[in-house]
Amino acid sequence: MYGILAVVSHPDDETFGCGGTLALHARESRVLSLTCNPRNRRGELERACMTLGLQEPIVFDADNVNISRELIKCVADVIISERPRIVVTHIAFDYHADHRATYEVVNEAIEWAAHTSMYKNPFLVERLLLMEINTLLPKPHVLVDISETIGKKKAAVSVYESQLAKFPWGYYQRFNDEKARLRGAQAHCQYAEAFAEESLARNGPFYETKATRDLLR
Amino acid sequence: MYGILAVVSHPDDETFGCGGTLALHARESRVLSLTCNPRNRRGELERACMTLGLQEPIVFDADNVNISRELIKCVADVIISERPRIVVTHIAFDYHADHRATYEVVNEAIEWAAHTSMYKNPFLVERLLLMEINTLLPKPHVLVDISETIGKKKAAVSVYESQLAKFPWGYYQRFNDEKARLRGAQAHCQYAEAFAEESLARNGPFYETKATRDLLR
Amino acid sequence: MYGILAVVSHPDDETFGCGGTLALHARESRVLSLTCNPRNRRGELERACMTLGLQEPIVFDADNVNISRELIKCVADVIISERPRIVVTHIAFDYHADHRATYEVVNEAIEWAAHTSMYKNPFLVERLLLMEINTLLPKPHVLVDISETIGKKKAAVSVYESQLAKFPWGYYQRFNDEKARLRGAQAHCQYAEAFAEESLARNGPFYETKATRDLLR
Amino acid sequence: MYGILAVVSHPDDETFGCGGTLALHARESRVLSLTCNPRNRRGELERACMTLGLQEPIVFDADNVNISRELIKCVADVIISERPRIVVTHIAFDYHADHRATYEVVNEAIEWAAHTSMYKNPFLVERLLLMEINTLLPKPHVLVDISETIGKKKAAVSVYESQLAKFPWGYYQRFNDEKARLRGAQAHCQYAEAFAEESLARNGPFYETKATRDLLR
Amino acid sequence: MYGILAVVSHPDDETFGCGGTLALHARESRVLSLTCNPRNRRGELERACMTLGLQEPIVFDADNVNISRELIKCVADVIISERPRIVVTHIAFDYHADHRATYEVVNEAIEWAAHTSMYKNPFLVERLLLMEINTLLPKPHVLVDISETIGKKKAAVSVYESQLAKFPWGYYQRFNDEKARLRGAQAHCQYAEAFAEESLARNGPFYETKATRDLLR
Amino acid sequence: MYGILAVVSHPDDETFGCGGTLALHARESRVLSLTCNPRNRRGELERACMTLGLQEPIVFDADNVNISRELIKCVADVIISERPRIVVTHIAFDYHADHRATYEVVNEAIEWAAHTSMYKNPFLVERLLLMEINTLLPKPHVLVDISETIGKKKAAVSVYESQLAKFPWGYYQRFNDEKARLRGAQAHCQYAEAFAEESLARNGPFYETKATRDLLR
Repeated sequence: MYGILAVVSHPDDETFGCGGTLALHARESRVLSLTCNPRNRRGELERACMTLGLQEPIVFDADNVNISRELIKCVADVIISERPRIVVTHIAFDYHADHRATYEVVNEAIEWAAHTSMYKNPFLVERLLLMEINTLLPKPHVLVDISETIGKKKAAVSVYESQLAKFPWGYYQRFNDEKARLRGAQAHCQYAEAFAEESLARNGPFYETKATRDLLR
Repeated sequence: MYGILAVVSHPDDETFGCGGTLALHARESRVLSLTCNPRNRRGELERACMTLGLQEPIVFDADNVNISRELIKCVADVIISERPRIVVTHIAFDYHADHRATYEVVNEAIEWAAHTSMYKNPFLVERLLLMEINTLLPKPHVLVDISETIGKKKAAVSVYESQLAKFPWGYYQRFNDEKARLRGAQAHCQYAEAFAEESLARNGPFYETKATRDLLR
Repeated sequence: MYGILAVVSHPDDETFGCGGTLALHARESRVLSLTCNPRNRRGELERACMTLGLQEPIVFDADNVNISRELIKCVADVIISERPRIVVTHIAFDYHADHRATYEVVNEAIEWAAHTSMYKNPFLVERLLLMEINTLLPKPHVLVDISETIGKKKAAVSVYESQLAKFPWGYYQRFNDEKARLRGAQAHCQYAEAFAEESLARNGPFYETKATRDLLR
Repeated sequence: MYGILAVVSHPDDETFGCGGTLALHARESRVLSLTCNPRNRRGELERACMTLGLQEPIVFDADNVNISRELIKCVADVIISERPRIVVTHIAFDYHADHRATYEVVNEAIEWAAHTSMYKNPFLVERLLLMEINTLLPKPHVLVDISETIGKKKAAVSVYESQLAKFPWGYYQRFNDEKARLRGAQAHCQYAEAFAEESLARNGPFYETKATRDLLR
Repeated sequence: MYGILAVVSHPDDETFGCGGTLALHARESRVLSLTCNPRNRRGELERACMTLGLQEPIVFDADNVNISRELIKCVADVIISERPRIVVTHIAFDYHADHRATYEVVNEAIEWAAHTSMYKNPFLVERLLLMEINTLLPKPHVLVDISETIGKKKAAVSVYESQLAKFPWGYYQRFNDEKARLRGAQAHCQYAEAFAEESLARNGPFYETKATRDLLR
Repeated sequence: MYGILAVVSHPDDETFGCGGTLALHARESRVLSLTCNPRNRRGELERACMTLGLQEPIVFDADNVNISRELIKCVADVIISERPRIVVTHIAFDYHADHRATYEVVNEAIEWAAHTSMYKNPFLVERLLLMEINTLLPKPHVLVDISETIGKKKAAVSVYESQLAKFPWGYYQRFNDEKARLRGAQAHCQYAEAFAEESLARNGPFYETKATRDLLR
């Protein structure tokens, strides 16, 4: 069982959006990328994950993110096998159509993975966190202090040569650095990553824990 | 510090909406009613709380719920003094205008109570749960098993003679019983109460805990 | 011309959502299921319809509900041939993706079926009612008293062995029973089914009745 | 009992929005204006109603429409005494803040008027129609043929000298004429008025008709 | 570089929605139709464009508008080659599913066309205007006086025999005439066409003009 | 006539949200604050405006922002006398209730100020820009390069001692600095301020320019 599963649209989203947080929990985190286009980005993703201290990522062999039952099932299968306490993915109002589709897919997959009627060993994720790539969160719920791991995040950013090359003046490096500084200012630390949190259903006939017996634990 | 603070529009909302849950945590729960109209409903509310095993409720001396900075401040003051881990209140799309206004007031009050710039001893509520009175939750997040305390809930319902008298055929008694049975069917127990959960901001410059250091605790 | 056409995603939705209401108008009601997966569910659906006193259902041979012009056209064709005064279908915010897709398809199909430019014998449905399966209606517009037909509804529920088997503790039986009791409590009868109503356009250049001449009939 | 009650923000809204329809049902229609500012507009409203063939309007003595329990109660009282089958009012997304507020007030008033716990002789309106003044309805549900009464509507428009004087080039006369012609084109008649329809709850514990016994009448 | 590119779902949308405006800027305007179904409509579209004084339209060979990366890319390619200052397309809440899909496609295409990482010669459209076919704009932002070109618009309408034949009483001719008169009444001229305007991003890392240096020009 | 009028809820919003932009256009910009609470903040605001190079601000003598016709009229009066080409104000989904109310008030005031029936010398603002204080814009439309004036902005921030004192670790200074750096990274300059743009109606019967005669100028 992993602590965090980051389900992202493309290689680099995991680093730009939550690389510092994943590095903070490196031994308990894993990345699933729903696409790999062009195919040589797999190498970049693997190097980035290594740089963040993570094990090998899971990569689906698709060009774009299209919402389908098959894709939802594949993501649910990964949730079932990884059993992450926290899933991190994209925000629903992201600027990129693939990111918005990923949000939909992950929401359904979390639901399916928890159904006792779908899996013999169903699993209910504890928390769903949404990260920011280029579209900023207006009012984040959670700010994770990544001052310790900012070096690894920056190193992982620098792995994505195919992306960085698009902006010769170093846009992605600078943007990711400034974003972490701004969130750090709000979090009263040096560098931070911001997340919105979305409530998940905890009880019901389709889940293992059908009722809550004690709200105060 | 209490476990649960139920902030309701009128006497009887606390019993109809979450009486079983409050009784389950009776020693750690308290009720705040934002109105008391007519004035003799205070007596009913006190008897209902006693029946549920709760201490004396807090009652504001108003006829209706009007959103105002003064009311928000008063609710925030109660949160500051009671320091509840969980706040329960009405849903945003409730049928009753007072309930909708209460939802707005409670949201702002939770925010204000957490601000270090507003209170010397600020307090951030852990969870915000929304209950159902006459308007049902389409897809609840949490179902609390109240089989143990359904007797107390029914006894508390029967205290509200002024309300029950409006429906000589016993509407409120039957509706509250059936609602708890339906939620019980979903929760695979005898009786349950349903809640929606809403994410609260945990970090930021205005809160005591400005950053999260470890997402996995 | 039938009184009611229930357009549902899967066999069993018609029974769980509006079986009692269909049985009440058995001679004037019919069921259209947009999917049949696995194929042996057709037998269950036929037995359920027979139990409710309905004639043979119409069944489309698909695995899932995908919004497409072809499917919309097929549903419109059924509306044209059945000419139902009332169409019942799923709610737009249902928990199940197939149900939400069915809502979209049915809305478009009702529109198409009414167009004089699409059909020689166009037909405008009078009322569109939306039913509840697992997702509850917060504030229903219509509550149909099904006390008379609850026996048939329960018998039809019990036909769906392939579904019931998923929940050995009898979830579907109990849930459908309690749901009908709760709606009965609101409707001041023993058992009821709840529906939301959605306004349909009555006039315009594409319809047969282009104008209303007398609002008070 | 009247057929139609038009609840409007200001004198002239009834004529501009639904004057032709009211004239069509003149003996069964009445107007309630929530404001009268300046006071001399009462005279204009009375003359317009007379021109449309309606009896004397009901006029509240306010300058603006402010949502309040008192105003809702006053509108509900009028509904109770007039008992209209149809209420016509403004649309929720109107350009004018008073119109939007009127929509809210009328919605609550229709609800209150139907409650057996609020009135000894409660009354449930059958239909709620929303009209267009300056803000057009994108997709109207109902188009009423007013070819017969367009003359009366135009005469009533011309009564509002205080308003017409604001646009010396005859804006209101021309706009109302063209609007009726455009809706006439859609309704395949000479002149029409357009309305959106909103579903009203018909059953529930607070209404006289708690359940529907026969959906097909 | 053209002044205006009208991207429409079907032949005739350009004439019904913005024919007068295109004719006003005939030498600087062009039409792109995303479908051509049946194929003989291409001839009608070409004649309509000629009637409006426009050069030959661009026509995609599809039956319906389906949102896809391929279609977005094709539309972006046209924007890149035509370089229009203004794009006109359908409204997001249009009654016709193809129109709604076109709105989505055009929005994405405008974005893609402006990206320096996608095109060597990217192009950022200045203004995005949304037109009305059968669904009216409640509150238009822009009213273009087409009194000069109404004759050409009417002549172009009359070219669409395949459509007009659907309504032997001359619906489309009359509706388009009355719509232009109504908008003329609002615009204080004889005939007008109405548009909603939607703000476009002007700056950012993906655009050529990454920053605004002077807001007042 | 001024270039920019910034209408803000409280002293300091103008500096935190758009101080650099105002300084860039100092001779053509002015600030209107809708509140001044406590009263000594007027002095701070005056010093901040002086620091930014602006003339004396306009300050309303209120404690909070309450939406009312009186306040809307007062803001419209300022627009009429200042005649700004651009109005800058808060975003509709801001975290602070006063900011959200200010957005509503400013929108109505811009409309009123343009009405020929309300003012002898009506004035239609050209652009409406919305700024970010603590709530960030997810996808800004405009990024203004303030590298030249960042020094003045920082100096103006430091004037607000009463606010800065709330956060002894220098939150506001650091946050405003990092926010401008992040926006600078996106704008490919050192420091920038971000704005969303909202389309304004340009034509109609109530405005001076009732029709657009040439879309391409």
